[in-house]
Amino acid sequence: MRNIALVVSYDGTDYQGFQCQPGGHTIQDKLEAAIYHLSGEHVKLMGSGRTDAGVHARCQVVNFLTSSSIPIERWAIALNTRLPGDIVVQSVYGVPDEFHARHHALNKTYRYTINCNRTPDLFRRRYEFHHPTPLDIEGMKAGLACLIGEHDFTSYTSPLSTKPSHVRTILKASLELESGSEESLYANPIYGRAWDEIHYVGKQRGVVHLYVTGTGFLYNMVRIIAGTLVQVGEGKRTPEDMARILAARDRSKAGPTAMPQGLSLWEVVYEALPLSE
Amino acid sequence: MRNIALVVSYDGTDYQGFQCQPGGHTIQDKLEAAIYHLSGEHVKLMGSGRTDAGVHARCQVVNFLTSSSIPIERWAIALNTRLPGDIVVQSVYGVPDEFHARHHALNKTYRYTINCNRTPDLFRRRYEFHHPTPLDIEGMKAGLACLIGEHDFTSYTSPLSTKPSHVRTILKASLELESGSEESLYANPIYGRAWDEIHYVGKQRGVVHLYVTGTGFLYNMVRIIAGTLVQVGEGKRTPEDMARILAARDRSKAGPTAMPQGLSLWEVVYEALPLSE
Repeated sequence: MRNIALVVSYDGTDYQGFQCQPGGHTIQDKLEAAIYHLSGEHVKLMGSGRTDAGVHARCQVVNFLTSSSIPIERWAIALNTRLPGDIVVQSVYGVPDEFHARHHALNKTYRYTINCNRTPDLFRRRYEFHHPTPLDIEGMKAGLACLIGEHDFTSYTSPLSTKPSHVRTILKASLELESGSEESLYANPIYGRAWDEIHYVGKQRGVVHLYVTGTGFLYNMVRIIAGTLVQVGEGKRTPEDMARILAARDRSKAGPTAMPQGLSLWEVVYEALPLSE
Repeated sequence: MRNIALVVSYDGTDYQGFQCQPGGHTIQDKLEAAIYHLSGEHVKLMGSGRTDAGVHARCQVVNFLTSSSIPIERWAIALNTRLPGDIVVQSVYGVPDEFHARHHALNKTYRYTINCNRTPDLFRRRYEFHHPTPLDIEGMKAGLACLIGEHDFTSYTSPLSTKPSHVRTILKASLELESGSEESLYANPIYGRAWDEIHYVGKQRGVVHLYVTGTGFLYNMVRIIAGTLVQVGEGKRTPEDMARILAARDRSKAGPTAMPQGLSLWEVVYEALPLSE
């Protein structure tokens, strides 16, 4: 038996999440079906983590054991011809027998994208949360900073979480305004910059990416952080509220769970497997 | 009656082109239906030009006459709530009575996008032509240059064109490799850079955008130019062939019509209407 790791990207819009479900319409079901179609084997995939319905992945890592003799370099092309267009195998690695996509992940990064231009970006509408009024991005950055480190994230976790402990470590968190993303080219002069300057003092337009890197994440954690930060950006909460909410250990103190389509599993880092250059 | 101009973006994937068709599944049909829904008027839209089935627009300009008293600044939001998610009105202008979106367009720019990375970009797969092997981009640039100016474009026009003259003027044409678009992060080491250097000498990976600006375009013109340039990029034709094909005035001498999804109507320029800053 060989142990094979795949780096997989997917558009989660039309799926019920990563992990197998009875209906069969999940990323894992499609990958396992493609592997069966190719090798004749019913493998059990191990993913680096689950993603919810509607959530995407730039880089999900999965591994499985196979007795197939298909050479490593053939797997990506062979699987891609057997997968729907919204799931792509980026690369394939032969990995040590003991490699486990979830247990051996050192850390993971998620990205949540908020477009606060007046109109949605038509060509990225499946991958962003559209917030049609400007946000106080500096305030959001200040609020985000207090989440870095080891904390009990009960306030930022779905009450449906089944984990015995809600203590997790956020290694890095940043908010980046995408350069050149501020609308200007076709902004209507009537509702243009002058309007914003009067009505949204201290707030900015553009596409904002929230990156959160941690050793482990709880159910809906990044989406609740994003939903609460949006309220800070709207001025409904102060940056300092982010820390107060954290200290409360009470989900009801935080903001809403932001819509799934803004979220992507961005990167998974392993010690042994150099997936990035 | 007032004359109103809209700047509209659309994802053409699921439509039968811009112009009204009996089936009713076109961009124009959807826009006219949204205007009817909003104002109760059956207007006849005038577009800056048609786009084919599957072709997109970052910026299509349309105008129509209305006796509705809805203020200009309300139209964009009101129409967007009545349009499907893949059509967005970016901005709305009250224009002089004589303004005509097609007659008064000074020039138009189309963009054709070719991704020659090994795997398609999942998140832009609806808006690019995926060419899985590298292309000689410098050769394509050299071939493209000879098309600039006033020429008879019969070789680069569908034989279905009904125009009496195939003489058109290309004002500007360029080929740009998108910065940072070369795959590297997840490139499989087995089929990685070393492989490319041996098997695809002088060719590059990445996402390439072809921009063509002209005063008028013929049926399938940009797509046939793109399809022929790809053959130059593959080394199947020389850059000089582009001029030879042009001189032949014979469609059969050129390459294939490239797939529609790579094409977008990128910009329309008017003298009177400042649509860009």
